[in-house]
Amino acid sequence: MPRYKLTLEYDGAGLVGWQRQDNGPSVQEALESAVMGFCGDIVVAVAAGRTDAGVHARGQVAHIDLSRDHDPDTVRDALNAHFRPAAIAVLSAETVAEDFHARFSATKRHYRYRIVNRRSPLTVERGHAWLVQKPLDATAMQAAADALIGQHDFSSFRAAECQAKSPVKTLDVLDVTRDGDAIAVTASARSFLHRQVRNLVGSLVLVGEGKWRVGDMARVLAARDRATAGPTAPAEGLYLMAVDYDAP
Amino acid sequence: MPRYKLTLEYDGAGLVGWQRQDNGPSVQEALESAVMGFCGDIVVAVAAGRTDAGVHARGQVAHIDLSRDHDPDTVRDALNAHFRPAAIAVLSAETVAEDFHARFSATKRHYRYRIVNRRSPLTVERGHAWLVQKPLDATAMQAAADALIGQHDFSSFRAAECQAKSPVKTLDVLDVTRDGDAIAVTASARSFLHRQVRNLVGSLVLVGEGKWRVGDMARVLAARDRATAGPTAPAEGLYLMAVDYDAP
Repeated sequence: MPRYKLTLEYDGAGLVGWQRQDNGPSVQEALESAVMGFCGDIVVAVAAGRTDAGVHARGQVAHIDLSRDHDPDTVRDALNAHFRPAAIAVLSAETVAEDFHARFSATKRHYRYRIVNRRSPLTVERGHAWLVQKPLDATAMQAAADALIGQHDFSSFRAAECQAKSPVKTLDVLDVTRDGDAIAVTASARSFLHRQVRNLVGSLVLVGEGKWRVGDMARVLAARDRATAGPTAPAEGLYLMAVDYDAP
Repeated sequence: MPRYKLTLEYDGAGLVGWQRQDNGPSVQEALESAVMGFCGDIVVAVAAGRTDAGVHARGQVAHIDLSRDHDPDTVRDALNAHFRPAAIAVLSAETVAEDFHARFSATKRHYRYRIVNRRSPLTVERGHAWLVQKPLDATAMQAAADALIGQHDFSSFRAAECQAKSPVKTLDVLDVTRDGDAIAVTASARSFLHRQVRNLVGSLVLVGEGKWRVGDMARVLAARDRATAGPTAPAEGLYLMAVDYDAP
């Protein structure tokens, strides 16, 4: 059973997320159906990150086991042909060792959250960023983000449905950058709690709007209580950008 | 009759272009309807560039005359409220002199054409870029572009429907840049022939694919014959980015 590592891109709009569910189209179901259409194999696809409904991916990673060897580029092209018209694409396919696991072998996950900070509604970026109409102070947001770097109990930013064993995670990167009216929040860690990035962004925006002071972020983190933190930022601004693995 | 200069953004998908037409929704019609909804005025909106069906804008400029004075920010917000759900937004509104004319006062127009150069279909960027699956040599494209800079008879890149009096235009900028699999072609001139940017990009891509040599571009330009040039690049990759005016 040769194992393939697939790097996936998708537009989360209209998808219920990575995981197969009864209430709508998922990436997992689309991928497993595409494999069936390509070679008739019934597979269970495993992903690095189980993105929520509406969340986009630029570099999701999944693995599948096929019943026989195929040229990886053929796998990529054949799956892409079977995805149509869903907005899902395999960017690359490669054969990997049998012990490669898209979820458990991942050493780091990189997310980006896109905010457009302006008065006027979105047009070209509709569904692909969060429109925040109040002026945001990105410098204050970065200062607040700095308090979150490192190993912490992130209970204040954890979704109620989160199934992680521990709320303690190590956040390696939380960068806030502004380019005109576009603000990007980049977050990197070995792993994240459920909705952690969107919950962090929701609180950073409170700082950016001036509703919170920079110092409030450390207080909220220390409270280890979801009720103390800000709202969850909408899914449409979030992108799973890349997943790192140790070299084989 | 106070005159207002409006800077507009829109997603060209689903629009028949700037100009009011019988066969579908136009930006002009949406804007004129929004004005009617806001203050009851019947206006004729004039734009800097009559973008074609499917072409996007990040900085289209239009002017309208209203029957009485309004705060420009109120005009912006009210029009945006009336556009919904169309993917059109007024980014800014300002009062201008009566002799300001969005089309005839423009001193430069800036376009960007976005190409994604990869094997896999588009997902997040679907409808917002041209997917070119054959590898493109952006350096060769830039070398070919250099032959087009300056004042020339651009008949080879002019749409049959073009109503310009003369095919002679002065191209100030034609830059080809690559960032990963994204290629951007930036074009700036006082004015362009109908479909000139898309026709230039169609030929640049032939150079990038190696079907044409760099030197072919000068030959095609000199031929002054549309039949000698490449195909028209699709509308979905083109963005009217900005329009310049002399300071009042």
